[in-house]
Amino acid sequence: MTRLAIIGPGLLGGSIALAARRAAGFHVAVWARRAEAVAELQKRALAEVASTDLAEVVHDADIVVLAVPIGIMGSLARQIASLVPSRAIITDVGSCKGPVVEELSPIFAQRGRFVGSHPMAGSERTGLEAARAGLFDGAACIVTPDSRTDAEAVTTIHNFWQTLGGRVLELSPAEHDEIVAMVSHFPHLLAAALVNLVAEKNATALEFAGPGFRDTTRVASGPPEMWTEILRSNHTAVRASVEAMIEKLREIATLLDHDASMTALLTQAKTQRDQLRFPKHSHA
Amino acid sequence: MTRLAIIGPGLLGGSIALAARRAAGFHVAVWARRAEAVAELQKRALAEVASTDLAEVVHDADIVVLAVPIGIMGSLARQIASLVPSRAIITDVGSCKGPVVEELSPIFAQRGRFVGSHPMAGSERTGLEAARAGLFDGAACIVTPDSRTDAEAVTTIHNFWQTLGGRVLELSPAEHDEIVAMVSHFPHLLAAALVNLVAEKNATALEFAGPGFRDTTRVASGPPEMWTEILRSNHTAVRASVEAMIEKLREIATLLDHDASMTALLTQAKTQRDQLRFPKHSHA
Repeated sequence: MTRLAIIGPGLLGGSIALAARRAAGFHVAVWARRAEAVAELQKRALAEVASTDLAEVVHDADIVVLAVPIGIMGSLARQIASLVPSRAIITDVGSCKGPVVEELSPIFAQRGRFVGSHPMAGSERTGLEAARAGLFDGAACIVTPDSRTDAEAVTTIHNFWQTLGGRVLELSPAEHDEIVAMVSHFPHLLAAALVNLVAEKNATALEFAGPGFRDTTRVASGPPEMWTEILRSNHTAVRASVEAMIEKLREIATLLDHDASMTALLTQAKTQRDQLRFPKHSHA
Repeated sequence: MTRLAIIGPGLLGGSIALAARRAAGFHVAVWARRAEAVAELQKRALAEVASTDLAEVVHDADIVVLAVPIGIMGSLARQIASLVPSRAIITDVGSCKGPVVEELSPIFAQRGRFVGSHPMAGSERTGLEAARAGLFDGAACIVTPDSRTDAEAVTTIHNFWQTLGGRVLELSPAEHDEIVAMVSHFPHLLAAALVNLVAEKNATALEFAGPGFRDTTRVASGPPEMWTEILRSNHTAVRASVEAMIEKLREIATLLDHDASMTALLTQAKTQRDQLRFPKHSHA
């Protein structure tokens, strides 16, 4: 029986609890800041322990998952560091890994062992009500050790995400941030930019949006404060993608009249897009 | 009983046949260029008449729908103009309306009456096998009369799309093209640009694509030749969107470090995106 402590009862924390229950072999304790969230956890019987008391949740944990916004991760980690057993392995689910690993590794240098991770299974929906056991099925779960990271901790967290259904991959924090800027953070910003562009240029146009526009802009419905934090944390890599897209669009503007170039461009995109493999169980 | 002739048995033509059957009150004839497509139409009993002979399909039509790529619409229209009864009302399903209306209106000036339309219900999937009766349910179907257009023809085609399940809207061809550039043509190009950007900068990153990237880039899997035609037909409006996006990204690059500005930008996008209404029956 693995004693699992989940810090934060949102979409990811709740889904981790549900996936752990489905996998069996876990004793699950969940911390929530608000009493209402604890009541909801208890009502839905999502965990053996649900509490606003950090000590009660983490005191005997084998694995602690920080499933809270990046902005409050440091302060929670400092509180947890004095409460966990020394055997505890701590991970997080933050979308940006360089700054998180930099901040959290030293906090757990004396007590517990930290390894960063990022299950790429977010959604524009948030909160416990959107949580589900299958959220991680087939999703890329990236584990991000650096030179300081304990090898056993990496193995434990690797196996943990695999048990929850994830497709586990390992990257350095810097590699992770560059890659995720390209396939997640910048696409999010681009979707928001597209919605705003249309709204500003011709608001009527939005009434004509069809399935293509719906899917292209879906992520723009994500929580603005959370995404502000993510984009700030990873602003160097995101800015590089913004600049690269400006260059790409400048090039495309010169090709719009050249059928052969446009067909080549669209064929390249279709070929690459068709090769992508995605989680089997995707949300609506 | 309305005698309906559909020219082209692809996703849209096939779905029109299926939707007309569901609605009842239609006698459906479908023209296909290839004998194999005619055999498939007959096998699936999608129409009362299926033929490679244009005259057989259109000779007694009340409504003719041109559901073929924009590039061959003119030549087919010229053949049809000498074959239809003078009462016939002709429409098309082209994604760009200015050039199509300009070309087709004079062709049907002597015989039949033309009004352009654009059911916004395309998909990255193509062909008869992707066709379904519910494709137009709740989809914006834009009818694009200009100063030359016969009022009765507009009413007939308006009612036709409504009968097939569409949400009918009227725009001038120029308004249509500007709007569709923003919510369909440019977003398609942007999705292709994003896929190519990532593939060129860091191909490994594509292995980490999650549900957000999947949806943001879905349309990039559309048929390159068809989209080359669409983008060329509407290149002025598409170029204006490309230039506007370059400006927007330049502005965003200066805001990435300013939390309040980023939250405002993302909140504006979320608010607009959350207000969009989409067809109930959307494809997967």
